[in-house]
Amino acid sequence: MAQASLQSSDAGQSAGPDPVDRILAYLSGFVSLTEAEQQLVRRLTRIEHYAKGTILLAEGRVARENWLVIQGCVRVFRRAHGADRTLAFHTEFHPAIPPTYGKDTPSPVTFECLEDVVASASTPEEEARGFAEHPAFESVCRVMGEALVARLQQAHIDALTRTAKQRYLDLAARRPDLLQRVPQYHIASYLGIQPETLSRIRRRLSRRASPGR
Amino acid sequence: MAQASLQSSDAGQSAGPDPVDRILAYLSGFVSLTEAEQQLVRRLTRIEHYAKGTILLAEGRVARENWLVIQGCVRVFRRAHGADRTLAFHTEFHPAIPPTYGKDTPSPVTFECLEDVVASASTPEEEARGFAEHPAFESVCRVMGEALVARLQQAHIDALTRTAKQRYLDLAARRPDLLQRVPQYHIASYLGIQPETLSRIRRRLSRRASPGR
Repeated sequence: MAQASLQSSDAGQSAGPDPVDRILAYLSGFVSLTEAEQQLVRRLTRIEHYAKGTILLAEGRVARENWLVIQGCVRVFRRAHGADRTLAFHTEFHPAIPPTYGKDTPSPVTFECLEDVVASASTPEEEARGFAEHPAFESVCRVMGEALVARLQQAHIDALTRTAKQRYLDLAARRPDLLQRVPQYHIASYLGIQPETLSRIRRRLSRRASPGR
Repeated sequence: MAQASLQSSDAGQSAGPDPVDRILAYLSGFVSLTEAEQQLVRRLTRIEHYAKGTILLAEGRVARENWLVIQGCVRVFRRAHGADRTLAFHTEFHPAIPPTYGKDTPSPVTFECLEDVVASASTPEEEARGFAEHPAFESVCRVMGEALVARLQQAHIDALTRTAKQRYLDLAARRPDLLQRVPQYHIASYLGIQPETLSRIRRRLSRRASPGR
């Protein structure tokens, strides 16, 4: 819940409070941090800025970092059957974790910045240092991990059991900013349909919505 | 890796060492636990036995528990477009976590025991008690959570970008026991194809394999 409200209120702001303040505000929705723990987060956080178009991780490469997006949008996709298949859009306060993070195996996916991105970046070594220095960090990551597991499962269930139209309506309800921020062909690729099919769905929905008003 | 070897070596055994000993052996692949921490795991673990056919969680109900499967197979599925769509098979040492676990919202999926199941079960209250009593438990859950996030992402990527035949071959390579243990129509529903299509894929593969021998 905290996440959803942060997402919509912060989306599109180009300037704002200090990135670490925003992380702390976000974390306060999960756990209550003491002043000392907040200082620890400040000390452990490495903020990075990436320009639009940056490839954070290319398919086939080893994933050395993971990210918590503070501002901007990262698209995750894979080349499949001659086209891109978009698997996720990571926006404000989404953890963007490569599936092979921490392993020496090639990444099955590419992480691409669709907008200028501000993110907290970390390597396995940085995280291990954080865990060793303070158990509260362990707790924060565990709780965020649980939220992520729930979201990944829901996305998987939706992708396999709901129609493209249902998923488009879900997206419009849950992440309305995304439909404004991301080119329609990426949304279509996320829904697993052709851009023309998405246009048709949108036309039908708007026609149905108009006469009732 | 520890997981894969445990899965195949233990599959199908009807009797074996004490379930908690098996959990400890499994956990030792992730973290090194002191004697005191091992005692804690013993104290916190609630082992349950469920008969084949038991519905651990029905679609539409609130998820009050999660499970770590120690023996047996739990199928996760959803009714969609007039049929079951199988989303996961949780076998030895898979965490079986309902996507709505810990929330008051209805589960989008059903968890069904395809075999007699031995599992470690827990509620949010039991987990909170464990975390409060010992930070090492937090660490164990964080590490297991990371492994789960990686696996869920890989399953999602595979389901959306690989063909049914590729996914069948992956399954045969990574979880060969599953193909023996689970009825073919459930495997087909997991691959998102009709049972007849799966039979055709299997026939073609076996025909191709035979002449080369």
